[in-house]
Amino acid sequence: MSLDILSSAKVFDGWHKQYRHQSTSTRCEMRFAIFLPPQTATGEKVPVLYWLSGLTCTEENFMQKAGAFAEAAKLGIAIVAPDTSPRGEMVADDAEGSYDFGLGAGFYVNATQAPFDQHYQMYDYVVSELPNLIEEHFPVTDQRAISGHSMGGHGSLMIALRNSERYSSASAFSPIANPINCPWGQKAFKGYLGDNESDWTQYDSSELMKRSENKQLPMLVDQGDADNFLDEQLRPQTLVDAAELSQYPLTLRMQPGYDHSYYFISTFISEHLRFHSRYF
Amino acid sequence: MSLDILSSAKVFDGWHKQYRHQSTSTRCEMRFAIFLPPQTATGEKVPVLYWLSGLTCTEENFMQKAGAFAEAAKLGIAIVAPDTSPRGEMVADDAEGSYDFGLGAGFYVNATQAPFDQHYQMYDYVVSELPNLIEEHFPVTDQRAISGHSMGGHGSLMIALRNSERYSSASAFSPIANPINCPWGQKAFKGYLGDNESDWTQYDSSELMKRSENKQLPMLVDQGDADNFLDEQLRPQTLVDAAELSQYPLTLRMQPGYDHSYYFISTFISEHLRFHSRYF
Repeated sequence: MSLDILSSAKVFDGWHKQYRHQSTSTRCEMRFAIFLPPQTATGEKVPVLYWLSGLTCTEENFMQKAGAFAEAAKLGIAIVAPDTSPRGEMVADDAEGSYDFGLGAGFYVNATQAPFDQHYQMYDYVVSELPNLIEEHFPVTDQRAISGHSMGGHGSLMIALRNSERYSSASAFSPIANPINCPWGQKAFKGYLGDNESDWTQYDSSELMKRSENKQLPMLVDQGDADNFLDEQLRPQTLVDAAELSQYPLTLRMQPGYDHSYYFISTFISEHLRFHSRYF
Repeated sequence: MSLDILSSAKVFDGWHKQYRHQSTSTRCEMRFAIFLPPQTATGEKVPVLYWLSGLTCTEENFMQKAGAFAEAAKLGIAIVAPDTSPRGEMVADDAEGSYDFGLGAGFYVNATQAPFDQHYQMYDYVVSELPNLIEEHFPVTDQRAISGHSMGGHGSLMIALRNSERYSSASAFSPIANPINCPWGQKAFKGYLGDNESDWTQYDSSELMKRSENKQLPMLVDQGDADNFLDEQLRPQTLVDAAELSQYPLTLRMQPGYDHSYYFISTFISEHLRFHSRYF
């Protein structure tokens, strides 16, 4: 498996780099970005936080806007951000070119419906292929945490709940916490997974948490109460109710006055990094 | 003078806001962004750092990418970022649509050459009109500092050197330190100011510093030594030589391994904020 480097920039005495590679999961070229903290320059191996971005994003948004590197450099944490969908001329997009399905909107599931099943296998890519690649090519340990925003918050919680042996902690900002019951999630799951709604619950964090049988992980969620998408799309209360039912160790904080933007993420990302650092 | 608000987002317990207004200097609609630290919520007046961005930027780049708000919130400093040129259908652009002249490339001068003299009056806008507007409409003192990147680093040093009574300190990242002797500066000054090169020196930081007669200001410059534009466009050594000649209190730091990007700026912006904070 070969990696092509696309960019490299020094930041907080560490390095931000972008790569592309041929993916076996999505059967197309994928890009990701990685922050390597300064500790890796002297051969030290560091744990990795995987960051999953939201609708319309690429591997670049978090790295440019979150302001995460000062704290990650201090704590000695690598950060890996994949793209949000397969890309390329052969990859099917939404027929109407909408922002919330198709390119930039892979929803971190394995699609079963044609034509999306050909490349939209983001679940396998994020859970297995990408960590294998990172642990083969970079000075990192197999200690992993996972976080994300909005669609990526759905991805991080859902993946952590289904693969709790692979992560030491999980967090999210403004996650789509109950996708089977909101317009974004229903559109995506119908398109990628088909009409049978019982196939959807395996990708719904609230449903997974309700009947959680796996090892429970420390989980931190921040949600702005001035978020335009709060009631219709995000539904954090459903997740809180699920945590009560299964006594899941979820901390969900409503943050007064904050919206859905990277300004919100940048305000609390250092706290999330310190949270994950405690459990590596 | 009325201000239209375009966006507002809470960040680090303060607020990021964008506005537009009709400018008397540039005779078109201008946009700016402002960060108001949390101290202003309780009626406290705070000093202002003006940030001038580089080629192709708008009022958004610094606010989204610099990661400045944690430290500015802690120190109680407002940050104001104007756009980098006049905009709008009636505003002349470079005939070839190049990135380094015309729209997004106002170079912080008052143009004298048609058709650019109609709107490209960014010097007056940044030195006078914008601070007047900010001090009229926001809870700020008349304590001002100025900083910027690349073309905006040229702007911040040049404006500080010419108006030292208006600022308490100045700084820059990767400034175009000697524009009369580099391709970017020569193209811009010829286009905005005409063929008479003696008209150019009033906007050249190295020339101004060499024959500095105004009050001297504390001045901090950071320059990455892996910056692709270092030798041809930026010429920091010319500024260092000028400071020696006039015994100007310039601290210029070559930062090993850093390039021209916002990853570099984000690494050192907190130090710049603390630097400016010492002199308010």
